[in-house]
Amino acid sequence: MERIGFIGLGIMGRPMALNLTRKGHGLTVWARRRESVAPLTEAGARVAASPREVAREADIVFLIVSDTPDVEQVIFGGDGIAHGAARGTVVVDMSTISPATTRDLAGQLAQRGIEMLDAPVSGGETGAVQGTLSIMVGGKPEVFERVKPFFQCMGKNIVHVGPAGAGQVAKACNQILAAVNIEGVAEALNFAIRAGADPRKVREALLGGFAYSKALEVHGQRMLDGDFKPGFKIRLFQKDLGIVLDSAHQMGLALPAAAMVAQHFNAQMGAGEGDLDGNSLFRVIDRISAAKEL
Amino acid sequence: MERIGFIGLGIMGRPMALNLTRKGHGLTVWARRRESVAPLTEAGARVAASPREVAREADIVFLIVSDTPDVEQVIFGGDGIAHGAARGTVVVDMSTISPATTRDLAGQLAQRGIEMLDAPVSGGETGAVQGTLSIMVGGKPEVFERVKPFFQCMGKNIVHVGPAGAGQVAKACNQILAAVNIEGVAEALNFAIRAGADPRKVREALLGGFAYSKALEVHGQRMLDGDFKPGFKIRLFQKDLGIVLDSAHQMGLALPAAAMVAQHFNAQMGAGEGDLDGNSLFRVIDRISAAKEL
Repeated sequence: MERIGFIGLGIMGRPMALNLTRKGHGLTVWARRRESVAPLTEAGARVAASPREVAREADIVFLIVSDTPDVEQVIFGGDGIAHGAARGTVVVDMSTISPATTRDLAGQLAQRGIEMLDAPVSGGETGAVQGTLSIMVGGKPEVFERVKPFFQCMGKNIVHVGPAGAGQVAKACNQILAAVNIEGVAEALNFAIRAGADPRKVREALLGGFAYSKALEVHGQRMLDGDFKPGFKIRLFQKDLGIVLDSAHQMGLALPAAAMVAQHFNAQMGAGEGDLDGNSLFRVIDRISAAKEL
Repeated sequence: MERIGFIGLGIMGRPMALNLTRKGHGLTVWARRRESVAPLTEAGARVAASPREVAREADIVFLIVSDTPDVEQVIFGGDGIAHGAARGTVVVDMSTISPATTRDLAGQLAQRGIEMLDAPVSGGETGAVQGTLSIMVGGKPEVFERVKPFFQCMGKNIVHVGPAGAGQVAKACNQILAAVNIEGVAEALNFAIRAGADPRKVREALLGGFAYSKALEVHGQRMLDGDFKPGFKIRLFQKDLGIVLDSAHQMGLALPAAAMVAQHFNAQMGAGEGDLDGNSLFRVIDRISAAKEL
């Protein structure tokens, strides 16, 4: 029986780890903030003193932390996973970070005989709580198969996309589409309102046709209800598009629509809207335009 | 029994008119180009000498022509519908034109006791042939109910959106979403390819999650197959976004993403790609960026 470690018990990590315990898996956990571990200890998890200690007690170590430097620190910092993991251990990074850094980390771990999967998720806090996350996985197929039963405790749509980094590439593409699709809905519904049509009727008419997107269905409704509760916060969306645009910069790839939405997110951060949902792009379009009937 | 007229027998109008004849409706037709009427006369339609003559022979006159000035000409030109229509006649404009002009036309017709519906469609040539168009209708509810059985010969998803112009507003919103969603797919798949992932695997992984759109499903596949056959041509997409952006200009509404895609369409027209499908936005992103591995 595999021994499981879990590092990072924030908004996403805590419910994901709890879903593993609910399926009967004993966990060794660590979080930067001591207060985050309480719900896990109540569920029977043991608390380790450092990521290194987690790695000593586990065959598979999941981690989900904020950003690229946090992942580097948790794996290769002084008390990092790399210093406690035996050969054959699997490190599963479920954070959303740079695809290029992910490949570097996987290469460095491979030199120590440690396996790595990149396995970023989409579906937000709701998906994490309900165990319905989409999980996009990069790494060796046989390692994916070994970890799959644990992924199935946390998510529903679990896809092995390709080798190391491919999960992060898929997540980057997911964020491009999520951002651009929401922008489109924000522009279309503002157009409908300004042009004097009933935006709810317009949304309904378009749901059945080629303009359909999940963004139109879910966020279109919330925009019209004035419901901008996260969901997925602007500050995280901004961070993720930062990764996308840094990667595009490195590759010499122009992403004009994604870059434009990132500018809107920058403006929202400046307006103190970092804790609103991404669907608050609706307010950006509304704010920058005067109200005048067609 | 209502007598039916049909004006405009191009790529869209011809199969739509034929679908009316197939359901047993006798038609009086007119088209600018005489050669366009042949398939309709074979199907039993009578040919009139002008839009005015069509209106004299019909209780409901459908029209679907290229652009705003064409609609104005067909209705109010010297030989136009307005000069042949009796009080109580219904003019049903299925073209995609300006919402503001549509309201003007409806107002002018109302002064003559002539009813009007704006009823633009989406679904392209395939939808026209198969009778599966989405039809977005603006006008009085009782006039909509009168015309509905005929719409049902041509389309499936038939929605009364609101008063005069509301159908055109919905169509404008449809085109904003179609254009922006396709742009997002073009950027995401180019990202996946440049970043060294298998774009087919990435697309599959994303179809099951929040990034889903019809554009990702249908056009994403075609982009990866290099299939840029229309479908819906860049030159028509450009014209439709022109209507959207003119309306936005009049209202003082900023539509940054839609405007950016319109610039890409301009570039494609310059590159001789006007007869490709809108999904050829994929090639714009590909072309402007150097190939370099992440």
